[in-house]
Amino acid sequence: MKPTVVRNVNRAAADVVKTLGDLGVATVHEAQARTGLMRPYMRPIYPMAKASGNAITISCHPGDNIMIHAAIEFCRQGDILVVTTTSESTDGMFGELLAESARAHGVVGLVIDAGVRDVRDLTEMQFPVWSKAVSAQGTVKASPGSVNVPVVCAGNIVRPGDVIVADADGVVVVKRENAAEVARLAGERFAKEQKTRERLKAGELGVDFYGLRAKLAELGVRYVDDLE
Amino acid sequence: MKPTVVRNVNRAAADVVKTLGDLGVATVHEAQARTGLMRPYMRPIYPMAKASGNAITISCHPGDNIMIHAAIEFCRQGDILVVTTTSESTDGMFGELLAESARAHGVVGLVIDAGVRDVRDLTEMQFPVWSKAVSAQGTVKASPGSVNVPVVCAGNIVRPGDVIVADADGVVVVKRENAAEVARLAGERFAKEQKTRERLKAGELGVDFYGLRAKLAELGVRYVDDLE
Amino acid sequence: MKPTVVRNVNRAAADVVKTLGDLGVATVHEAQARTGLMRPYMRPIYPMAKASGNAITISCHPGDNIMIHAAIEFCRQGDILVVTTTSESTDGMFGELLAESARAHGVVGLVIDAGVRDVRDLTEMQFPVWSKAVSAQGTVKASPGSVNVPVVCAGNIVRPGDVIVADADGVVVVKRENAAEVARLAGERFAKEQKTRERLKAGELGVDFYGLRAKLAELGVRYVDDLE
Amino acid sequence: MKPTVVRNVNRAAADVVKTLGDLGVATVHEAQARTGLMRPYMRPIYPMAKASGNAITISCHPGDNIMIHAAIEFCRQGDILVVTTTSESTDGMFGELLAESARAHGVVGLVIDAGVRDVRDLTEMQFPVWSKAVSAQGTVKASPGSVNVPVVCAGNIVRPGDVIVADADGVVVVKRENAAEVARLAGERFAKEQKTRERLKAGELGVDFYGLRAKLAELGVRYVDDLE
Amino acid sequence: MKPTVVRNVNRAAADVVKTLGDLGVATVHEAQARTGLMRPYMRPIYPMAKASGNAITISCHPGDNIMIHAAIEFCRQGDILVVTTTSESTDGMFGELLAESARAHGVVGLVIDAGVRDVRDLTEMQFPVWSKAVSAQGTVKASPGSVNVPVVCAGNIVRPGDVIVADADGVVVVKRENAAEVARLAGERFAKEQKTRERLKAGELGVDFYGLRAKLAELGVRYVDDLE
Amino acid sequence: MKPTVVRNVNRAAADVVKTLGDLGVATVHEAQARTGLMRPYMRPIYPMAKASGNAITISCHPGDNIMIHAAIEFCRQGDILVVTTTSESTDGMFGELLAESARAHGVVGLVIDAGVRDVRDLTEMQFPVWSKAVSAQGTVKASPGSVNVPVVCAGNIVRPGDVIVADADGVVVVKRENAAEVARLAGERFAKEQKTRERLKAGELGVDFYGLRAKLAELGVRYVDDLE
Repeated sequence: MKPTVVRNVNRAAADVVKTLGDLGVATVHEAQARTGLMRPYMRPIYPMAKASGNAITISCHPGDNIMIHAAIEFCRQGDILVVTTTSESTDGMFGELLAESARAHGVVGLVIDAGVRDVRDLTEMQFPVWSKAVSAQGTVKASPGSVNVPVVCAGNIVRPGDVIVADADGVVVVKRENAAEVARLAGERFAKEQKTRERLKAGELGVDFYGLRAKLAELGVRYVDDLE
Repeated sequence: MKPTVVRNVNRAAADVVKTLGDLGVATVHEAQARTGLMRPYMRPIYPMAKASGNAITISCHPGDNIMIHAAIEFCRQGDILVVTTTSESTDGMFGELLAESARAHGVVGLVIDAGVRDVRDLTEMQFPVWSKAVSAQGTVKASPGSVNVPVVCAGNIVRPGDVIVADADGVVVVKRENAAEVARLAGERFAKEQKTRERLKAGELGVDFYGLRAKLAELGVRYVDDLE
Repeated sequence: MKPTVVRNVNRAAADVVKTLGDLGVATVHEAQARTGLMRPYMRPIYPMAKASGNAITISCHPGDNIMIHAAIEFCRQGDILVVTTTSESTDGMFGELLAESARAHGVVGLVIDAGVRDVRDLTEMQFPVWSKAVSAQGTVKASPGSVNVPVVCAGNIVRPGDVIVADADGVVVVKRENAAEVARLAGERFAKEQKTRERLKAGELGVDFYGLRAKLAELGVRYVDDLE
Repeated sequence: MKPTVVRNVNRAAADVVKTLGDLGVATVHEAQARTGLMRPYMRPIYPMAKASGNAITISCHPGDNIMIHAAIEFCRQGDILVVTTTSESTDGMFGELLAESARAHGVVGLVIDAGVRDVRDLTEMQFPVWSKAVSAQGTVKASPGSVNVPVVCAGNIVRPGDVIVADADGVVVVKRENAAEVARLAGERFAKEQKTRERLKAGELGVDFYGLRAKLAELGVRYVDDLE
Repeated sequence: MKPTVVRNVNRAAADVVKTLGDLGVATVHEAQARTGLMRPYMRPIYPMAKASGNAITISCHPGDNIMIHAAIEFCRQGDILVVTTTSESTDGMFGELLAESARAHGVVGLVIDAGVRDVRDLTEMQFPVWSKAVSAQGTVKASPGSVNVPVVCAGNIVRPGDVIVADADGVVVVKRENAAEVARLAGERFAKEQKTRERLKAGELGVDFYGLRAKLAELGVRYVDDLE
Repeated sequence: MKPTVVRNVNRAAADVVKTLGDLGVATVHEAQARTGLMRPYMRPIYPMAKASGNAITISCHPGDNIMIHAAIEFCRQGDILVVTTTSESTDGMFGELLAESARAHGVVGLVIDAGVRDVRDLTEMQFPVWSKAVSAQGTVKASPGSVNVPVVCAGNIVRPGDVIVADADGVVVVKRENAAEVARLAGERFAKEQKTRERLKAGELGVDFYGLRAKLAELGVRYVDDLE
């Protein structure tokens, strides 16, 4: 495919995006049958980073961030940049200046399968980033790439407008067309977990609560007082 | 060996466990002749995590946490869960609900040679975890495993009832039968280090304090003012 | 080369070292044409660690810290220890006692291509360290090495007296003889970035500010409203 | 998406698949503008492994190969199995028995983002495999997955019927609809390289042949007889 | 535990060891309920390496091979050396001279959770080695360790006299007391696989042969002709 | 430093280079006091690769091989290319065409701290390469770099004209000015090892031959018939 910038992006409804973000990565991931989770090497740059938004997807040449600049003008309030490279790189393709620029256009976070820099500034700005590496290594602006085409980021397909949910547990992608349904299911799951929590907190055992004793017996797990 | 849950665990005395925890991983590791340290990929989920307790050992199928549930009912105040898998996995086998359940049965921490999730909640609960990975990837409850049998976790043998000491430096295992003696030796070491600290802080050189000048000469290390 | 300790080190001027530290790793790295950056696996032990100083270089046998002790007496106010090993190791070659000793002789930080321990104490002392690993594994004092000879640390040559700048973005080495010039260039870059920041913050697009639209066209990047 | 097995696959023409395989990974990758290359951790199990075919895509639960069995009946002569897991695993999900079964249904190779076993037998059978790991760890047949849906394998999207080209250099994916065009371009590239080879072999310099001297000058590369 | 060399080792019967070796790692691992497999980073130094024998266990200081020398005099025909280090190392602790020495005392192979060197010579000698790394980095003979005590190697407990089976698929440990029973079970498994092989080779589908169609239906896997 | 190509290189004498190559990496590394060994992640592309030569050093932008082309015209019979990148990359910067070109100018091998491609062709040509990765990912010719300046490759300083010795054990760098002396010492070591080999082969124990029994006693290693 030729290098292409796509201007228009269909986004999920803002309240759905917000709900998904509030529920968090683990709950959302469960609610969509454990699909869409990025590889666990994607880590937040500060401990309590949290974000949700619609994906603006960006495919870059490694060590080249020209396409990130090209993407900003098509961003809207509540978007998250999702950046991949065509071969593996840890270079710091994004820093504080780009964060200021992105924020000015409504961007609420970055997910990048490469490196990031200026992490002290980004932390002070509370601009959340999930990345593979932290590196001061700068980049050039010399090679073509694409914006708002489907990309693979940290092992998952991300299409422009898909919902990104990211927190201390990692990053999960929700297909735009499924977002409302996943939000509903995740909400139900969350409500149910509230009740589970209370009972487990009160000391009820998981083996009883989840009815696992029969399963354990069926699996041939034997109980003994002591070994030998 | 058939999948087995062992109900009874001999534990070390609570005051010994506490003393070992207060002295910390580095000192305890030294005091037992530098044995029992888990591999350094085991990292705490929050910076100042600290725990000591008696090991409840759990061997799981990768991506399956049924045996963690099975283990909870044999836990007592002051225990630490030590979880391994039969092949490598980064799946998030433990989260906030399990932490509530474990805490309700006296568990003070988790050491897991796999992944953990809900790390924001676990941090807010101040439930300390040392793990190989953070991942929202959930698990099934379908395959047998064992509880309270000897396991290998992050390169070390852990037997039920052994003392686990964990802090920002990692995780060390103290054999239950050696715990009192190791606590005594570690205490002596700590006291001695206090004195060393004062002298080094006052500017006395390590080469003098430890008597290393003769050693350096014997090793053939030459001193010159400048190269060439 | 025979194991050698070199007593004298030419250092950069203190104000230059301070300026470089204030400007930070990313800016300094850019100012010297993106050279001298250590590999991104070198990470600070606490989030906002920051230091700059003149390198005291130390080449050790893996798992042996005798040469770190040997180096302390040649340190002065504002130095940073740069420690490498002759083969790869993650052992904890440096801890709180050595930090007290080093600080008593003016050392303001440590960069070590191996492991470090006592990280809770080091954090409380606010003694900044950049390392490859955290490990409680202690070391012996049995094998010769060198002090203040050129070393390779995390992929870069460091010579005694070179300026080390380290922060949340990693570690960069500035050749001593270039330090003043790099500080000047980095300062100019910083000033320029201030203006860029304001304009980007105000919403001006990077593609306009940096004049990238022509470049994108030249690279054959096409713009479409929608795919297909 | 619910676990689904898709029976029908549109495949590329056999002669196109053969041509792509003959031209090899590096040439094909170049011919399609350097897209579609799997991550370099995908390695062949024996040195001169070489294969091309149409992808039968399989998404499995980690440590569970039931869906590989489910896929075999939809294979035809010249297909290649492309197996991924929903979270990372190195378990040996495929061995000699499955290879016999697959071969009996026309399968000419396997690309698996997990582990493989029986590599001695597979080598003797000359059944080529590209994998992330070699591991004897067996798998269960207990969790649902999908066959012939789009998957992400080693960083790239693979859709059923896409052409897989694999050799000592790794694995590249060619979109089915582009296969004929890519084969043509790759053939042209190959022919051109023949001529280049002769001239370079005869000693003509790349800087002359590719006309790089002006570029080097433009980039500010200076030539000196000696340093200083 | 104090550094100790244990002279006597109870070994499994030679014919049992041979049978296990002939059956190979994957079959033996299955026959003992998928236990005892070392981590997949343990790789043979040449492609078709194959060995089985009784373990002589050796625990070394990293970068120090004195205890390997100490172990040789207690070796007998058919033993395999199993070497671990007390902290992680890739140093080449074993080379061709040690292989000649070991072979002269009956040793038929080496399993080492560290590095090995002289791999060209070892290959020419057909002395099989499974290791974590290949490295020319030599070692000292300066620190105490133990011989013939239980060790952890690549994630598994190995006790002196346990049976080691190693081939292209990796390394598996069989407890000495279980060796005869495991050999019997593995033999049965092998015989059964012969029949399976014939039927699969003849084109019978795994879904039929293993009766998986009902399971797939129960798991909710749906079959469709085409997506959408 | 500005991007620079240095034309002249002082080389070691051809017979010294040959002798070092014949003696091999492990022996040469020992003979120069275990210095100069590249990290063990540098692996040959085919099992019995072996080479020695004078280093032509090349510093490239990651993913850009223009400087390799620039280097060829300054090569002579017996040179080895040593390629590094300014930030980490696994891209395939060198393939069969470049190998033909290099060989036409006398180059006998390549050491590259990045990726290589066309490994089947390179193997058939018997053009030996040691690299960090194999990858078909091609490169551009767009960014400046340097030729024949000191570089860091896989953890070691390499200066133009230094002797590179590489074989199945890895890669070692010998300083040009030390080459003759190291060759002499390595030759002596080799001769001595011949005698050692005969005695060890005849069954003499290393503990006797190297006189280690006293050392073991001094280290406190106790000998027991059985544990307990």
